[in-house]
Amino acid sequence: MYIESDKNPRIKNLVKLLEKSKERKSQKRFVVEGRQENFFALRNKFQPVEYYIQPEIFQDLIELPAVATYEVSQSVYNKIAYRKITEGIVGVYEYKSYDLSKIELSGNPFILVIESVEKPGNLGAICRSADAFGVDMVILCEEKSDPYNPNVIRSSVGSVFTIPVISSNNEKIYEFLKKNGISIYATYMNETSICIQDAELSTPSAIVFGTEHSGVSGFWKDKIEQNILIPMRGKVDSLNVSNAVAVACYEVVRQRIILK
Amino acid sequence: MYIESDKNPRIKNLVKLLEKSKERKSQKRFVVEGRQENFFALRNKFQPVEYYIQPEIFQDLIELPAVATYEVSQSVYNKIAYRKITEGIVGVYEYKSYDLSKIELSGNPFILVIESVEKPGNLGAICRSADAFGVDMVILCEEKSDPYNPNVIRSSVGSVFTIPVISSNNEKIYEFLKKNGISIYATYMNETSICIQDAELSTPSAIVFGTEHSGVSGFWKDKIEQNILIPMRGKVDSLNVSNAVAVACYEVVRQRIILK
Repeated sequence: MYIESDKNPRIKNLVKLLEKSKERKSQKRFVVEGRQENFFALRNKFQPVEYYIQPEIFQDLIELPAVATYEVSQSVYNKIAYRKITEGIVGVYEYKSYDLSKIELSGNPFILVIESVEKPGNLGAICRSADAFGVDMVILCEEKSDPYNPNVIRSSVGSVFTIPVISSNNEKIYEFLKKNGISIYATYMNETSICIQDAELSTPSAIVFGTEHSGVSGFWKDKIEQNILIPMRGKVDSLNVSNAVAVACYEVVRQRIILK
Repeated sequence: MYIESDKNPRIKNLVKLLEKSKERKSQKRFVVEGRQENFFALRNKFQPVEYYIQPEIFQDLIELPAVATYEVSQSVYNKIAYRKITEGIVGVYEYKSYDLSKIELSGNPFILVIESVEKPGNLGAICRSADAFGVDMVILCEEKSDPYNPNVIRSSVGSVFTIPVISSNNEKIYEFLKKNGISIYATYMNETSICIQDAELSTPSAIVFGTEHSGVSGFWKDKIEQNILIPMRGKVDSLNVSNAVAVACYEVVRQRIILK
């Protein structure tokens, strides 16, 4: 089937899925643009629903599974794709649902706990660092930024699919961490804070990152075993949240891999 | 003077300065929104030209210098401010011009050399990390992203003013670094690359970061003394450029301050 009109009901629904988090959540589906992003979604066993291909752009470099595939005109593709003149592929996938209470961790886990990050670009960059530094899981608390927001997927360059990104509420997350014997750290300054390089991060650990505006919430302040600081010496003295996450992940890898 | 109309020629010019890099460069002026941002611009001796205040929002927490100050209506403020309902202050400043050949470095400098970062948000986050980790200078090569772009200023939370951010061309930058006895590193992988934690970054150093798409350019590949890598172990294996910068800055601080 070739779709030429953006009035086509499938295209209209695609636009809804792209634009509205509520729509994604109620349909339990989301949209993935781009070759690399679709490749990682498939390789990490996200269930594909359908594909939209712009045949003049798409290069058949990834093998698509046997689901409905529609060819669309360039003008329709312009409606559904951010990178209008490259890639040529948009896929729809089903949400993966995770139940924290059923996940069994093994090995020496390192987990990021992220309290409501507002900017999708920051969450995408956090997933990219999480992938790069081998983080086991990214947990979003009382999530504000939807991990299947197209801007998150794009800025994560597909890494939002390579690691489990799980949304849950504070109580469930805390229970999960305790049950699995994970030490909880948070980047939070008070008189008992220590520098991150002096924290013991080579055993099972989770680090909680608060919001850009108000920092770590009261819930987590009460639960953490140690507050840690990234050593700073500037005039503004703050880091973008995704940069703070990247530094913390690097320090964990340094302690676990490099110091061995 | 109270300005009620966005047809006012001053307001029209302000909008041009906000929207067009070319306009900023030809007028050698730029626009700063927000209390903290204006505070840092002033404290770091940027020359103020004029201010626009929305009196219902602005709280007189920073002392403004004796230059022309205009009050504007809320509808005019909405045109010139991104954060429409907070802050209430927009300032215009003159460019600071730096001449690399006249700058004398002292102490044990650490310099970031950034090849064309495309996204203003990334450049802003880089300046924030540079401030936080005490970087001496950020040099933009053959600059594509203008440091006085309003999105850079906003995402830097004002740190673009607390450290020198200097645009220059490759040859001049290289001369400057050599003249000052600075070792040049770049994050670039080939068979001679070493991990960043094994590089000697506690002496005067500069790290070159390439573009997100094509990496470090040929010019710098020929000039570097050592290529360094941030240890990664993921499936996508890449970091957002501002995250890579943050990790490198942290490692430099760790080697210089913490290991002492």
